[in-house]
Amino acid sequence: MSDKFKVGILGATGTVGQRFIQLLEDHPQFEVTALAASDRSAGKTYAEACAWRLPGEMPEQVKQIVVKPPAPPLDCDFVFSSLPGDVANDAEESFARAGYPTITNSSSHRMDADVPLLIPEVNHEQLALIDAQRAARGYDRGFIVTNPNCSTIVIAMALAPLHASFGVTSCIATTMQAISGAGYPGVASMDINDNVLPHIGGEEEKIESETLKIFGRVGASATSGAGMRVSAQCNRVNVTDGHTASVRVKLSRPASIAEVRAALASFTALPQELKLHSAPAKPIIVRDEIDRPQPRLDRDAGKGMSVTVGRIGRDSVLDYRFVALGHNTIRGAAGAAILNAELLVARGYLRK
Amino acid sequence: MSDKFKVGILGATGTVGQRFIQLLEDHPQFEVTALAASDRSAGKTYAEACAWRLPGEMPEQVKQIVVKPPAPPLDCDFVFSSLPGDVANDAEESFARAGYPTITNSSSHRMDADVPLLIPEVNHEQLALIDAQRAARGYDRGFIVTNPNCSTIVIAMALAPLHASFGVTSCIATTMQAISGAGYPGVASMDINDNVLPHIGGEEEKIESETLKIFGRVGASATSGAGMRVSAQCNRVNVTDGHTASVRVKLSRPASIAEVRAALASFTALPQELKLHSAPAKPIIVRDEIDRPQPRLDRDAGKGMSVTVGRIGRDSVLDYRFVALGHNTIRGAAGAAILNAELLVARGYLRK
Amino acid sequence: MSDKFKVGILGATGTVGQRFIQLLEDHPQFEVTALAASDRSAGKTYAEACAWRLPGEMPEQVKQIVVKPPAPPLDCDFVFSSLPGDVANDAEESFARAGYPTITNSSSHRMDADVPLLIPEVNHEQLALIDAQRAARGYDRGFIVTNPNCSTIVIAMALAPLHASFGVTSCIATTMQAISGAGYPGVASMDINDNVLPHIGGEEEKIESETLKIFGRVGASATSGAGMRVSAQCNRVNVTDGHTASVRVKLSRPASIAEVRAALASFTALPQELKLHSAPAKPIIVRDEIDRPQPRLDRDAGKGMSVTVGRIGRDSVLDYRFVALGHNTIRGAAGAAILNAELLVARGYLRK
Amino acid sequence: MSDKFKVGILGATGTVGQRFIQLLEDHPQFEVTALAASDRSAGKTYAEACAWRLPGEMPEQVKQIVVKPPAPPLDCDFVFSSLPGDVANDAEESFARAGYPTITNSSSHRMDADVPLLIPEVNHEQLALIDAQRAARGYDRGFIVTNPNCSTIVIAMALAPLHASFGVTSCIATTMQAISGAGYPGVASMDINDNVLPHIGGEEEKIESETLKIFGRVGASATSGAGMRVSAQCNRVNVTDGHTASVRVKLSRPASIAEVRAALASFTALPQELKLHSAPAKPIIVRDEIDRPQPRLDRDAGKGMSVTVGRIGRDSVLDYRFVALGHNTIRGAAGAAILNAELLVARGYLRK
Repeated sequence: MSDKFKVGILGATGTVGQRFIQLLEDHPQFEVTALAASDRSAGKTYAEACAWRLPGEMPEQVKQIVVKPPAPPLDCDFVFSSLPGDVANDAEESFARAGYPTITNSSSHRMDADVPLLIPEVNHEQLALIDAQRAARGYDRGFIVTNPNCSTIVIAMALAPLHASFGVTSCIATTMQAISGAGYPGVASMDINDNVLPHIGGEEEKIESETLKIFGRVGASATSGAGMRVSAQCNRVNVTDGHTASVRVKLSRPASIAEVRAALASFTALPQELKLHSAPAKPIIVRDEIDRPQPRLDRDAGKGMSVTVGRIGRDSVLDYRFVALGHNTIRGAAGAAILNAELLVARGYLRK
Repeated sequence: MSDKFKVGILGATGTVGQRFIQLLEDHPQFEVTALAASDRSAGKTYAEACAWRLPGEMPEQVKQIVVKPPAPPLDCDFVFSSLPGDVANDAEESFARAGYPTITNSSSHRMDADVPLLIPEVNHEQLALIDAQRAARGYDRGFIVTNPNCSTIVIAMALAPLHASFGVTSCIATTMQAISGAGYPGVASMDINDNVLPHIGGEEEKIESETLKIFGRVGASATSGAGMRVSAQCNRVNVTDGHTASVRVKLSRPASIAEVRAALASFTALPQELKLHSAPAKPIIVRDEIDRPQPRLDRDAGKGMSVTVGRIGRDSVLDYRFVALGHNTIRGAAGAAILNAELLVARGYLRK
Repeated sequence: MSDKFKVGILGATGTVGQRFIQLLEDHPQFEVTALAASDRSAGKTYAEACAWRLPGEMPEQVKQIVVKPPAPPLDCDFVFSSLPGDVANDAEESFARAGYPTITNSSSHRMDADVPLLIPEVNHEQLALIDAQRAARGYDRGFIVTNPNCSTIVIAMALAPLHASFGVTSCIATTMQAISGAGYPGVASMDINDNVLPHIGGEEEKIESETLKIFGRVGASATSGAGMRVSAQCNRVNVTDGHTASVRVKLSRPASIAEVRAALASFTALPQELKLHSAPAKPIIVRDEIDRPQPRLDRDAGKGMSVTVGRIGRDSVLDYRFVALGHNTIRGAAGAAILNAELLVARGYLRK
Repeated sequence: MSDKFKVGILGATGTVGQRFIQLLEDHPQFEVTALAASDRSAGKTYAEACAWRLPGEMPEQVKQIVVKPPAPPLDCDFVFSSLPGDVANDAEESFARAGYPTITNSSSHRMDADVPLLIPEVNHEQLALIDAQRAARGYDRGFIVTNPNCSTIVIAMALAPLHASFGVTSCIATTMQAISGAGYPGVASMDINDNVLPHIGGEEEKIESETLKIFGRVGASATSGAGMRVSAQCNRVNVTDGHTASVRVKLSRPASIAEVRAALASFTALPQELKLHSAPAKPIIVRDEIDRPQPRLDRDAGKGMSVTVGRIGRDSVLDYRFVALGHNTIRGAAGAAILNAELLVARGYLRK
C-alpha cells in the first residue's frame, strides 16, 4: 500500500496534462490515481482517450485509469489542473470547495487577490494567502494555488535575485516563445513554418500584470503590486520547447556587471534548502558563452527546471541586459505546479 | 547599343551578390557588365563560378561574363559592392580612387566620417558628404556611398517618420533575424533548427552606432550623432528571409496612438517623389491585423522594398511600441544599394 | 464591359480557394464574379469572411463580393471548386445539373467512370467523357471535370513522356509532401516541427488509383485502367509548398539514361501547342545538378506550373529512378483546374 | 582504481565523437581516458578544443583530458573512431597495427573483405573475420571492426527478422535523413530550411553495397554478398535527429501481414540474450498507430538504440511495405560502435 499522496489531474489529455503524467511517473511523494478532462474523454480509459504526443511511451500506470469529467469527487488527495481557461474557473472552485487542494497551471485564478501566484524560489511568502482565502471563501480543507504563465516564470526567476540585491524598477522583455506553449493542435504549421508570429493572445498582458503580483508585498488578504514597470512584447517562433526572452532592466542601486552576474549565478532559495524533489540544484544557470542560452541546448537544464541566463551586459537605454530561457511546459507549467505542491507538503498545507 | 549605365558587381557570387544580379535583371537604368569576386572564381564564367541559390534561374545575360578579381579596372561605369568585410575596405577604396563610384552594402566604410550612410527615404542630405569625401581623399570621379546594416535599415525606416514628427529620444529594438542575413553557408542547420541563437556577431553594435549616424545632422565634412539612445538585442531565428524587430520608442513630444499610426502610414519621401524605379509606392505599410507583420507574408511587400509595421501601441516603460519587418537581402542589402544608385543618378552624382 | 468568362469559386475561403483568386487576378479570359463557401462565411463580404494567408494582399476586385452558400444559382458562367470532400459531392452535382460547368479540384468525383480526370498535357482524350456524362446524368449545359490529387499530378506529369516513349509497367513513388497540402489550419506545428509524418490520409490510395485512370484508355463512357502497377508511400515533411517524390519505374522497352532524360526534357503537349495562358513553356524541366530538384528553389518554376525532374539514373530493383517535384497548390490544385478550364475553352466545351 | 577498459576516442571533437563521450559518461565497462582529433585541437584540453553542441553539459571527466593527434600511442586499451573519411583509413590501420582494437564508425574500412561490418543483433558471425584479418595483415593484438552507415543500420535492423523468417530478395528504401547525420557545420540552414535535399553524397551507394555485405555469408576470410537486390534513394529533411525510411520488400516465401508484423515485433537476438549494456530490450519496436514512427517521438526509443517500425502493409509492386526509423547518431553511429565493443568484450576479443 503506497504512502504517497493520491493525485488527480484535471485536463489530463492536453499538452500540459501529459507533462504532469510524465513528470509524476516516478515521483517519490505523488502518485496519479485520478484523471479528468473537459473534452469527450470521460468514460474512456486514458489509453483510449489520450493521443500521447510526448517522446516516449505513455506510462503504464495511467493507461487503465478511466477518465472522469472535471468535477468532484475524484479519488485523490489533491488535484493538479491544466484545464482550459473557459472551464478552469468554475471547475477549480468546485474542487477547492469540495475540499481538494487545487494546484493549477491555468490562468483563471492567478490574479485573484487571495490566491497565491507562487514560484517557490521567488515568493513563498504568498502561501500566507491560503488562510485568508479559506476564510474569505469558506473553504475547509481545499484551497487554490496558482503558478504564473510560462514566460512570466522564466522572466521572474531571472529578475528575482536582481530585485533582491539591487531593486528592479523597470523591466523590458521581448519573448520568443515555443509552439508547445499553445497546446495541441495549437499553432498551425502554415502559420509558423519559415515565420515569426508577433502576437500571442493575452501573453503580453499576463507578463506585465503577473510580474507585479509575483514581486508584490504580501498583506493580510492580498498582495500589493510591486513598484516596478514591466513591458512585454511577445513573439512565437519555430521552436518546439523553450521560451527565450531578451530582457533589459533598470536597477535602483548601481551594480557592476560582475555583481549582476554573481547575483544570478549564486541564486539559491527555499526549494534548494528544503531539497524539494523537483527543485534544481541551481535554479539559475549562468552561461558565459557568447551565444547562449539556446532553446535546443539549454531547455532541459536541471531536468527542465533551471532557467538559463546569458549575454549579461550593459544596456544603453535601461541599465542592464541579458537573455533568459526556460522550458515552458516543465518549469513554465507542469513542473512549476509540481514544485508548488512539493513546497505545500513541506510547509504542511498538504496532508493525507 | 544600350544607353544604360554599365554596372560592375563586387562579391558577385555571394548571397547578396546574387540578389544584385536578380534585381538588376530587367532594370531600366542599369545593366550588369562586369562581375568580380574575392574567392577562387576569377577567370571562370559566372555560370561556372557561381552556385546559384535563389529560386528561379540565373539570368542569361550574366552566365558568360568572366569573373574578375575585385580590383580596378572593370568594364563598367560604377560598382556595387557586397564584398566580405576583410577585403571590402581596401578594394572599395581602390575602386573609388580609380574613378569608380562605389555603392556598397559592406560595413567597412559605413562609419567613416566623410562617407554617406544613406537611406534615400530617410537622410538624402548625407549625399552632401560626397564632395567633402572627394576633397579629403583626393578622389576625382569616384566616391564611396554605403547603406546601413540590414536590420538597421528596417528599424531606421520605421523610426524616420516618428523622429520627424515627434522626435525619438530612445529606441529599444529586439530583432529576430533571418538566416539569409548570414550569407552562405552561413548558419549551420544544427544551430538553428528547433532553436534561437541569441547572438549575431557585431549586429547589436552596428544597429546602435549606425542609427545615430543615420539620424545625425550633416555638417561640412561629417555628421554629428543624433541625440538619441539606441539599444539593440539581436537574435537569429529559423526564418529564410525577413528581419523582424520588436521596437519600443520614447518620443520627445506627446502623441496619440492614432497620430503615431498616421505618421507611419502616410510616410513618403524623396524616392517616391522622384519615382525612383526601386522605390516602393509606400515605404512603410501599416497593418492593423493583430498578428502582423509576419516574415513569410510581409517580406515581399513592395517587391521587398517596403517595411511593414504593425502592433502599434503604448508601452509601459518607454512610451510606444510596434513591430517592424523588412526583407533583409532586398530592402536590407542589394535593393538598398540599388535605390541609393538610383538616387545618385537622379541627383547627378552618377553620370556616363 | 468585360468579355471575359464570369467565374464562381466554390470553397473560396480555403487554402486552394485563395490560390484560385490569386492566380485569376489578372487572367486574360476569366474574371471572378462569384464566391461561395461552405463555412459560416455566407452573407459576409470576402474581405470580412476570409483570413488571407498568402503572401501579398487580397486582390481588390474580390474584397467586396458577398460570399454565397455553395449552391446554385451563382452569378457566373462556370465554377471552380475546391470544396471539402464532405460537401463537394452533392454541391458539385447540383451545379452541374443546374447548367454550370464545374471544374473541380476536389476528390469527390475523380473516380466516377464518366468524369474526366484531366491533366491537359497528359490525357486530353478524357474530354470525350463529357458527352457520355451529360447523356448518362441528364446534364444539359453543365458537366464535371476533375483534376487529380496534388501529388498524383506531379508523378503523372513525369511518367507521361516515359509511358508514351517506353511504356511504364511499374511505378514506385515515395512522396515528401508540403504542409500547404493539408489546408488551413491543417497540420499542427507540434506534429511537423523537427519531424516527419509517415501518413497522409487517403493519399497513397489516391495516387495508386488515380494514376491508373489517368493513363487508362478512354472508351465510350469510361476509361479502362492502365496496365501498370503503382505503389505509393506518402510522407509529410516540414516544407511550406512543393511536393517531392522519389520515383522508380520499370519500362516495357529498354532505354538508355540519355533516352530517358531526352524524353523528359523534350516533353511538350497540347497546352503548349495551343499556347494556353497557364501552360508553362516547359511542362517538365530537367535539372542535371546532383542535388536538384529542391522545393524551395524549384517549386515556382514555370510560375508553379512546371514539374522539375532530376537525379535520373538506373535503379537496381526497378530499372530507372528520378526525383520529381511540383508546386502542390498551383500545378497540383488551383493551377491545374485553371489549365483544365483553359483547355475546355480552347476545345469549345466552355462557351458564353 | 577503476577496472574498466580504458577507451580512446578518435575524432573526439566532432558530432559523433561528442555522442561517444556522452554515451560513455556512466558506462559500466568503459572509461574514456584518451581523446584524439585530426583538427587543430591537439595540445589543448578537451574543454578548450571542443565546442560542445549536444544538449546538456560536457561531462566533467573529459574536460581536462589533453587532446592528442590521431596516431598511436594513446593511453587506452582500445579506440573508438569517428574520424573523417580522409584521415580515417590510414589512422585506423596505424592503431590496429600498433595493437589497438579499433572499433570504428568511419566508412573507410567497411567494405574491406576481412573487416567485420557488424550489427550485433544481425550478423555477429562476422566476428569470425577478425582472426583472418589479423593473419592477413600481420596484426597482433589489434584489429578493425566497423559498423554500417547510419541509415543502412536502420534498414538492416528491420530487414533482419524478415530475411531470417521469409528471405528478402529485393528491398527498395527511400530515406528521409536528419541533419545531424552530416556532422557540424554540415548542412547549411539556407539549404534545408523549408526544403528537402534529394542528394546525400555517397549515401545511396553505401546502403546498396553495405546491406549486401551485412547479410552475406561469412567465409574463411571474407563474406559473400547476399543474394538480394537493394535500391536506395536518399533525401535530407529538416529534422535534427532520426533517420526515417519508407521501405518495400519482396520476400521469397509468402507471409501474411500478421506474420510479417510478428517477425518484427518478436525480434530479439544475441545482444539481448547476453544482456549487453547498450542493447535495448526490444531491438525493434512495432507501432500500430497509423502515423508512426515519427522522428521526434520515436528516435529516443530504447535510449536511441531501438529501431521503430510502423505502417506494415502490402505493396502493389513489391510485396510488403513499412516505415522504419532509428536515431542516426546513437543506433546509427556512436551507440552502434559501443554495442559492437560490448559484444567484443562478451566474446573475448577485447581483454585488458
